[in-house]
Amino acid sequence: MVYVTRRATFSASHRLFNPALSDEENEKLYDKCANPRGHGHNYVLEVTVAGKQSERSGYVIDLKILKQILETEIIRKVDHKHLNEDVDFLKGVIPTTENLAREFWKILEPKIPVGTLCSIRLSETENNSVEYRGE
Amino acid sequence: MVYVTRRATFSASHRLFNPALSDEENEKLYDKCANPRGHGHNYVLEVTVAGKQSERSGYVIDLKILKQILETEIIRKVDHKHLNEDVDFLKGVIPTTENLAREFWKILEPKIPVGTLCSIRLSETENNSVEYRGE
Amino acid sequence: MVYVTRRATFSASHRLFNPALSDEENEKLYDKCANPRGHGHNYVLEVTVAGKQSERSGYVIDLKILKQILETEIIRKVDHKHLNEDVDFLKGVIPTTENLAREFWKILEPKIPVGTLCSIRLSETENNSVEYRGE
Amino acid sequence: MVYVTRRATFSASHRLFNPALSDEENEKLYDKCANPRGHGHNYVLEVTVAGKQSERSGYVIDLKILKQILETEIIRKVDHKHLNEDVDFLKGVIPTTENLAREFWKILEPKIPVGTLCSIRLSETENNSVEYRGE
Amino acid sequence: MVYVTRRATFSASHRLFNPALSDEENEKLYDKCANPRGHGHNYVLEVTVAGKQSERSGYVIDLKILKQILETEIIRKVDHKHLNEDVDFLKGVIPTTENLAREFWKILEPKIPVGTLCSIRLSETENNSVEYRGE
Amino acid sequence: MVYVTRRATFSASHRLFNPALSDEENEKLYDKCANPRGHGHNYVLEVTVAGKQSERSGYVIDLKILKQILETEIIRKVDHKHLNEDVDFLKGVIPTTENLAREFWKILEPKIPVGTLCSIRLSETENNSVEYRGE
Repeated sequence: MVYVTRRATFSASHRLFNPALSDEENEKLYDKCANPRGHGHNYVLEVTVAGKQSERSGYVIDLKILKQILETEIIRKVDHKHLNEDVDFLKGVIPTTENLAREFWKILEPKIPVGTLCSIRLSETENNSVEYRGE
Repeated sequence: MVYVTRRATFSASHRLFNPALSDEENEKLYDKCANPRGHGHNYVLEVTVAGKQSERSGYVIDLKILKQILETEIIRKVDHKHLNEDVDFLKGVIPTTENLAREFWKILEPKIPVGTLCSIRLSETENNSVEYRGE
Repeated sequence: MVYVTRRATFSASHRLFNPALSDEENEKLYDKCANPRGHGHNYVLEVTVAGKQSERSGYVIDLKILKQILETEIIRKVDHKHLNEDVDFLKGVIPTTENLAREFWKILEPKIPVGTLCSIRLSETENNSVEYRGE
Repeated sequence: MVYVTRRATFSASHRLFNPALSDEENEKLYDKCANPRGHGHNYVLEVTVAGKQSERSGYVIDLKILKQILETEIIRKVDHKHLNEDVDFLKGVIPTTENLAREFWKILEPKIPVGTLCSIRLSETENNSVEYRGE
Repeated sequence: MVYVTRRATFSASHRLFNPALSDEENEKLYDKCANPRGHGHNYVLEVTVAGKQSERSGYVIDLKILKQILETEIIRKVDHKHLNEDVDFLKGVIPTTENLAREFWKILEPKIPVGTLCSIRLSETENNSVEYRGE
Repeated sequence: MVYVTRRATFSASHRLFNPALSDEENEKLYDKCANPRGHGHNYVLEVTVAGKQSERSGYVIDLKILKQILETEIIRKVDHKHLNEDVDFLKGVIPTTENLAREFWKILEPKIPVGTLCSIRLSETENNSVEYRGE
């Protein structure tokens, strides 16, 4: 078993806002992250696939293929977008880093052609990151 | 003469859009950066002050003071904001990295208490950055 | 279950010295780390909390709160200090990175308001780091 | 139990090529990584040892010793080398990052003097890395 | 005047070897960099263009265009290549970092559509880099 | 003319203290940097030499030689030391980053065997750095 990780980046804006709450409650809960016109980040996405190596290639998974999957399934849909408004698979989702990681998992998990999706790590800033392992 | 640099970061959203142009022209000019609902970045700001050292302190400028100036004059006004809409000193400015660096210069230059503002470097992503030296 | 990590930094000095040993034994054991007048590092602390997400906020833990806990409980007490001499909770502790991580765990574990402290990673230099998981 | 990590780097060239396959198959399988004259990387190696701390030193393992083991057993043999041609322990091994990590494990595992080798992480570029845990 | 920088990376192998010298002289001059089968690096290229901003776009140069020029003129020709053997514009050039930077300058300088090429910085490792400014 | 940079690191402790001032004045001037028992940093030193390339080697200066000079003249004398007390060439110098860079210049400038010392950049933390160019 070897764990293989591909890193990708995207730049997006978002607003933390729970529509079930009042504006005051949102501002209290999310503070400056609730700014109505949003703010943004350079997100860093690290996707880890676990598996046995192919005898033919010596790879667990060809990282060019994993790169292409990330590009098609995630990056193209979120890069240079407003995550609350422009992304179909995030409709109705509060775009916290935790929720983004889980939604990315749902999309990527069935698309991994060999091995098993093992971890999605998403960094919002150099100081804040989350990891989701499908648990 | 010694050059002293302080680094600070902020997270903001923006949209590249020239109101003198049509939507089609903006989209052609700015491509995905013209997305109407915006996108965002973790900006990295590096401010360099040049000067002689104080004999008393051995400093060109106390970096705690420079940090405080950056915080008060720039970071508080742009962090977790939409640069096109939320920032007074950017009204009417297309928020390219070049223009941001120049506007930050205009604000900071008269506020530097010792030495001379020498360079403002602003990175939008790990691959894109600009430097303005007041020329 | 999602894993949320907050990064913080501090600058401190220390000396590796076991008072149960002679000076010669300390120097043999710790080499240049036993320098009597100490040396120092920019430490990087990464604290991971594991938990379920709040339905209300979409957070496992509000990272502004975790940041504040790290600031109050750890950073204020160790930043710009001599770890052997200035820090109450390190009295009698040889300040190896391993011991620092464990002592930080003891302090932080009961202070985490939601979720469970899961990992403390502490880097002394870009080449040396330790992780403690409460085992 | 504490986990201690030492980071080291080396610069090497390699070519991905499976001698059981034709040139066309190799080129299809490995694309530009099959370039006959090779290409190269600055590899980053992170080796983690898990163990209990010595009461005498407060260390799991003296990182100066781990550094020396990495230097003697790995870095000297692969740094500024062609991995397919210059390295005895890689003869007959397709030098994918996965295989390198596993071969490093085989060499390092019996050499760790205290604690247990727990993870070898090897990064080929800032975007591609693998981890092997001896499973 | 504003200075705009685009960063790009490539992975290549090379061998330092002066054909006017004997093998012994080459080995003495270049030490492990003269290894006959070569070694490799992840190079980091930073290209800076200086110029006035366009009133229409607020850009000195559209970084998407600069990115494309770097890709077409440099990266495609050197990425995953052996610099001594696979690259037409490096025939007869000893591929030191200094010479690479100068050859890249010769290629890029006439291709910059607006502004002036101002600096090429090329890093071979995290510790070694060169800058060429056309002087 | 090409500019060649070598990076090196060292870990040291220091205390900012001007003996011409009272303890209260020092504390007011230097705040937490005046802590009597000191604090420390992982310093990053970047030394740039400018010169013409040797026709024989293609180098401005062999970076293995520059590395050795930095090691012998600077790193060995300051690494794992208390800068106020353990370093002969810093006796009587307030160890601000500015002063360290200037003292390093004085030592290195006559030792550079080819080309000209052009810049010494010294970073105290990821946010604070200085550059001295011999002016």
